[in-house]
Amino acid sequence: MAPVTYERGPVLTPRAQDFPRWYQDVVDKAELADNGPVRGTMVIRPYGYALWERVQAEVDARIKRAGAENVYLPLLIPESYLQREAEHVEGFSPELAVVTHAGGKELPEPLVVRPTSETVFGESMARWIQGHRDLPLLLNQWANVVRWELRPRLFLRTTEFLWQEGHTAHATRADASAYARRIHLQVYRDFFHDVLALPVHVGLKTARERFAGAVNTLACEAMMGDGKALQVATSHEMGQNFATAFDIRYADADGGRPLCWTTSWGLSTRVVGGLVMGHGDDRGLVVPPALAPTQVVVVVVKEDEASLGAARRIQEQLSAAGVRVKVDRRTDQGFGRRVTGWELKGVPVRLEVGPRDVGEGVVTLVRRNSGERRRPTLEAVASLVPALLQQVQGDLLQRGRQRLRDRTADVSSVPEAAEAARTGFGRIPWRTLGVDGEAELARNAVTVRCLQRPDGSLPEADDEDDLVAVVARSY
Amino acid sequence: MAPVTYERGPVLTPRAQDFPRWYQDVVDKAELADNGPVRGTMVIRPYGYALWERVQAEVDARIKRAGAENVYLPLLIPESYLQREAEHVEGFSPELAVVTHAGGKELPEPLVVRPTSETVFGESMARWIQGHRDLPLLLNQWANVVRWELRPRLFLRTTEFLWQEGHTAHATRADASAYARRIHLQVYRDFFHDVLALPVHVGLKTARERFAGAVNTLACEAMMGDGKALQVATSHEMGQNFATAFDIRYADADGGRPLCWTTSWGLSTRVVGGLVMGHGDDRGLVVPPALAPTQVVVVVVKEDEASLGAARRIQEQLSAAGVRVKVDRRTDQGFGRRVTGWELKGVPVRLEVGPRDVGEGVVTLVRRNSGERRRPTLEAVASLVPALLQQVQGDLLQRGRQRLRDRTADVSSVPEAAEAARTGFGRIPWRTLGVDGEAELARNAVTVRCLQRPDGSLPEADDEDDLVAVVARSY
Repeated sequence: MAPVTYERGPVLTPRAQDFPRWYQDVVDKAELADNGPVRGTMVIRPYGYALWERVQAEVDARIKRAGAENVYLPLLIPESYLQREAEHVEGFSPELAVVTHAGGKELPEPLVVRPTSETVFGESMARWIQGHRDLPLLLNQWANVVRWELRPRLFLRTTEFLWQEGHTAHATRADASAYARRIHLQVYRDFFHDVLALPVHVGLKTARERFAGAVNTLACEAMMGDGKALQVATSHEMGQNFATAFDIRYADADGGRPLCWTTSWGLSTRVVGGLVMGHGDDRGLVVPPALAPTQVVVVVVKEDEASLGAARRIQEQLSAAGVRVKVDRRTDQGFGRRVTGWELKGVPVRLEVGPRDVGEGVVTLVRRNSGERRRPTLEAVASLVPALLQQVQGDLLQRGRQRLRDRTADVSSVPEAAEAARTGFGRIPWRTLGVDGEAELARNAVTVRCLQRPDGSLPEADDEDDLVAVVARSY
Repeated sequence: MAPVTYERGPVLTPRAQDFPRWYQDVVDKAELADNGPVRGTMVIRPYGYALWERVQAEVDARIKRAGAENVYLPLLIPESYLQREAEHVEGFSPELAVVTHAGGKELPEPLVVRPTSETVFGESMARWIQGHRDLPLLLNQWANVVRWELRPRLFLRTTEFLWQEGHTAHATRADASAYARRIHLQVYRDFFHDVLALPVHVGLKTARERFAGAVNTLACEAMMGDGKALQVATSHEMGQNFATAFDIRYADADGGRPLCWTTSWGLSTRVVGGLVMGHGDDRGLVVPPALAPTQVVVVVVKEDEASLGAARRIQEQLSAAGVRVKVDRRTDQGFGRRVTGWELKGVPVRLEVGPRDVGEGVVTLVRRNSGERRRPTLEAVASLVPALLQQVQGDLLQRGRQRLRDRTADVSSVPEAAEAARTGFGRIPWRTLGVDGEAELARNAVTVRCLQRPDGSLPEADDEDDLVAVVARSY
């Protein structure tokens, strides 16, 4: 399908011509975000933030169903706190932003702007956990973090980003492991499939790719429109490493004070970048209805009484049916320009209401994902839309699955794996690839995204027989 | 009524004995927040954060109904940005936390951790506003900010706090003024009255107390349990001062580029402190039902089948009726201790379900605010509770109004005003007090909280005849 031009000419660089440039164009023209005054930071505009608020609402509801409670920990952390953590993970040092002056003078000890809150979580959990009744302790935080970024890209890699960061403590390894898997599958994978309509590979990271200090890192890896992988969420089993660093213990029934087993897990504003690259096309964003802040826009063609009345009635009926609907009555602006704007923003369904339509008792309905147009009657439209939104949601997930299948090759050698990763994902037996093959691929910027069982499910550990490595280039 | 003791003895310092100590005890024992590792910062615990999430949800819904959209602006701001603002407001300098090192080296220009986002709002609005069609531009942000605090108190005055910060631009002064008033009355006052059940005085700040750069500052002032005032929200009409500093202009129909008229308005985690001090008693927090994360707690006395079954049925029925209900079945812990805990947390209604109650087909219902107990039948309880919650909400607002009336004295001289402020608020004609009287009161830490019309309504400007000054000591 040719890009929509109307009176303005194409507004986006075609994806096939220059994917990174197309991405930047969408972020700009769909008014998602601008660059902030400090390199690598972003000004998230109303539409970009509305998408993030919808991500937050859906993920937060799932986190709460999994029993975790939200907290808020401080932005500024004494530099000495990060030393403690440095005993079990490599320091963040080049990533850190450091406050040396405050209150009009130099501070006796520098403060770090949190790159994560894990040190304060560790210290707080050690204080809050007394006995076994306090376990499991299931906490989460929504906050901003700062990690100095040398090659920033809006949403994908920014110096400051927004995320949620869960930390939990358990009495047994089995309980910690089960909870990390519960979050990974019932919060993250569920969100990506059912809301974002992005199929994800789930699996374990290899030792090379694992989070420092974790005994297992579980990843969700999605395929973007250019065949590259985007890691959209990770969950870590920390074993007793984190509990050791922060002395997180509990009094058990026998009078002992054993260490807890902990997990951590996160998802960030990077997901908005995944939405753009996972579903977008040459006309802009394509937002799945389950996520869309605006599911239906009613575009009033001309400011006549009949059109306005019809638009208002449709809005009332759809709102009453639980549809997120907006009326665009900016008739002092060109119709084509407004339509281009709504297509750029990826609103799933557009209803065009003009005097001719209303005269004929119909409305023009356009599906954003397929461009398909129909002209249902004014009476039928309200009952038709909710089912249509569900169908669009299903079609997007289906299309994502199809792309994942079409662009994933089962291969049996390192060169074949490298070749597969030029256009998509490769799946290769882990015992065929091995750490040497992994290192060889890495020299060409191809990485093992995750290890999974042959049926695609999550392994218990990375030493299971028959594991398959999913390899790809990645963001 | 004597403090509840059960087996543990009194857990809180009595309010009458030491109000500040009582406040600190409630924050600690109700598990609202701990001190963070950096002086003046706080670790907001699950229950404290759940209260803040409810504040956010209610205020955010009202802000959206007023047409404003949320954005997110960067945490770090180049130091030079604050110079621009310094032309119209006094610098924040001693309040600022300054990042001098990042990415492993010293930065060419220091970065400031935002004390507010107003400079980035100003710069972004100047870029986003082109023509009159872009007006009004109605924006809001929920974020953390840092202002170095020498005498911190949890929630009331902290170095880092959470807040919302709205900024809007308009074509005319009348439109800006009307919008600031709309936010002040329909968002803030409405929230304080209808959700927090805290009556507030609304009025204008005097020139002495006004926000630097504002032409009018509108305040909401609530009375705390000790008779002191807490400023819980402010809205500013910035005239064209802010637009001048950031060159926020629009192309009008005549080809001119006039300056916009702007507003800003904010409310912070200080509100949680206001909840504690506005409603709390010697047993702890008293949370109004409209705000309460948990409106009803069902305390299972013993772990027998009949009690558990009854508790589950009550939970299902209340959930279905839209009540936020929790079941406490920690029967391995003492009953009295659990009851003390729920009273500390201020849950409005407690239902105690024990084998004797269930045997008699009843449940014990206790109202937190009055301590009143009754024993409705198991069948009646679900239909009784929603109306009871409404009644408690109304009673709390009524009690707040009564206190405000009882502890506000109409006075007619400066010494009388100072005397009134020892135990509550004084109301004195502004022309009697004047700026000299204001300065005299200030020497005794009594300030004009706001200027209002004799009927308590919001004046248009501070030069109206017959204005009344509300004076008090304050937090």
